[in-house]
Amino acid sequence: MDAMALFEKTLTDALRKSDDPGCPPTLRTALFYSVFPSGHRIRPKLSLAVAKACGFANPDLSMASAASIELLHCASLVHDDLPSFDNAAIRRGKPSVHVAFGEQIALLAGDALIVMAFDSLATTAARKPELLAQLIQIVASSVGAPRGIVAGQAWECERKVNLANYHQEKTGALFAASTMAGAASSGFDPAPWKNLGMAIGESYQIADDIRDVCSTEEEIGKPIGQDELNNRPNIAREQGVAPAVRYLRDLIGEAIESMPECPGRNELCVQMHEEARRFLPKALREVA
Amino acid sequence: MDAMALFEKTLTDALRKSDDPGCPPTLRTALFYSVFPSGHRIRPKLSLAVAKACGFANPDLSMASAASIELLHCASLVHDDLPSFDNAAIRRGKPSVHVAFGEQIALLAGDALIVMAFDSLATTAARKPELLAQLIQIVASSVGAPRGIVAGQAWECERKVNLANYHQEKTGALFAASTMAGAASSGFDPAPWKNLGMAIGESYQIADDIRDVCSTEEEIGKPIGQDELNNRPNIAREQGVAPAVRYLRDLIGEAIESMPECPGRNELCVQMHEEARRFLPKALREVA
Repeated sequence: MDAMALFEKTLTDALRKSDDPGCPPTLRTALFYSVFPSGHRIRPKLSLAVAKACGFANPDLSMASAASIELLHCASLVHDDLPSFDNAAIRRGKPSVHVAFGEQIALLAGDALIVMAFDSLATTAARKPELLAQLIQIVASSVGAPRGIVAGQAWECERKVNLANYHQEKTGALFAASTMAGAASSGFDPAPWKNLGMAIGESYQIADDIRDVCSTEEEIGKPIGQDELNNRPNIAREQGVAPAVRYLRDLIGEAIESMPECPGRNELCVQMHEEARRFLPKALREVA
Repeated sequence: MDAMALFEKTLTDALRKSDDPGCPPTLRTALFYSVFPSGHRIRPKLSLAVAKACGFANPDLSMASAASIELLHCASLVHDDLPSFDNAAIRRGKPSVHVAFGEQIALLAGDALIVMAFDSLATTAARKPELLAQLIQIVASSVGAPRGIVAGQAWECERKVNLANYHQEKTGALFAASTMAGAASSGFDPAPWKNLGMAIGESYQIADDIRDVCSTEEEIGKPIGQDELNNRPNIAREQGVAPAVRYLRDLIGEAIESMPECPGRNELCVQMHEEARRFLPKALREVA
């Protein structure tokens, strides 16, 4: 079984815990609906690639922390799509969770996914207790306050927004957790891996801006033009697509050069370049 | 410093992490507002009482797990009060979080408190890694799906409700986590402590039903008569106040008798009886 197939199995196993007669059936269905079918799984793919480059000493733990990161990402999408936030009707090409199951279940499913992320990580890591506290702190600090996704989202409620914090927290933090948890789960010091994750996160944000301007709804599975509609900052709209693509290419290049030493560094560099190209709409890949 | 003063300090320290220029100020204010001033802190008080009865071998860890339980309780109140659920305007005698700060911030504050609960527990328990996985699993399973608060709430979205599951999950589970985490944090086997927590949780639910029927808004800090208004089951409304009080008294008596052996069992029994009396509106305490 290849790494991503094993990853999907890890995610499924975490969700299967809700196969219990005590679990309300609509919530159970909504939990699976929020996580499957698979999105691009960019964050767990990144986390597992780093774990592998660092020697993959604890594959179960690397899988569990990647699953925890994906569960938290899915939770953030479910809550972000709610009417009081983006009021998004479509996600990954299908009705968003609150449209399919109602607002109450969407709110609860998001909460349950957050809890499940920590529960499933603790269950797996019980065998490596000395790494568990570190992994939970890495993952938790990337999604909560003061510096995680929740904080990033909360900048949308402020009159005076710190844009750098907004992007770093809303997008960069969970990418940084992905590289750091990958390294930590293989027994490496996570700190030197933060920059790589942050830079990939920033690249992803820029690529998202570019896609929002010049991709199609079919290609990205959600409506385009949303930043203009919601009056959100978008580098491709403000500076043009070509400069945004150039900035993205430079950023990824620098990020990859800054990668810490590890046994599989060369292979990881190649993989990062390939993955980063996929951030862009198909029509633009040759330019980058 | 007595145990509850130290507990408040532990909670404050967990929240102080949001004192960071990267944290959006409204979110930061809402986090403190959600947790302070103190409610009755019934769950952490129970958890610390059990930890003490079991020898209090790791006070920091007992404090941290009690804080984690209270943070999760506060998160559940913030989300439960939202317009898509109970649409409650008042909580603990002041405007509920979404009334004071808006729906977006209330949703995010709840999410951040859930994450903070696990983060702060992991930070403290890093020194006792062998207990961390167990504590996280105890706490997580009491708040998520399939058997925690979120599952309990989700029964409200089902046409066919399993009432026993509904109460056990919505109220009992976090009380059970309180007794179990208290025991586990002191190095005792948590399993035999589950029944006590569940029974106290059920008692609390019955007491809540009684208060909803015959207390005052001033005494409980939120409007009364809400169960009738929201068509929720209420034992005191259905069977009368006096039978409900008798049932409550018997339940607490049996729960306390079932308490596992531990060094401070006698003292804990006395404390439990006293605390349980406080569940009731003042006018009814002599009856019980």
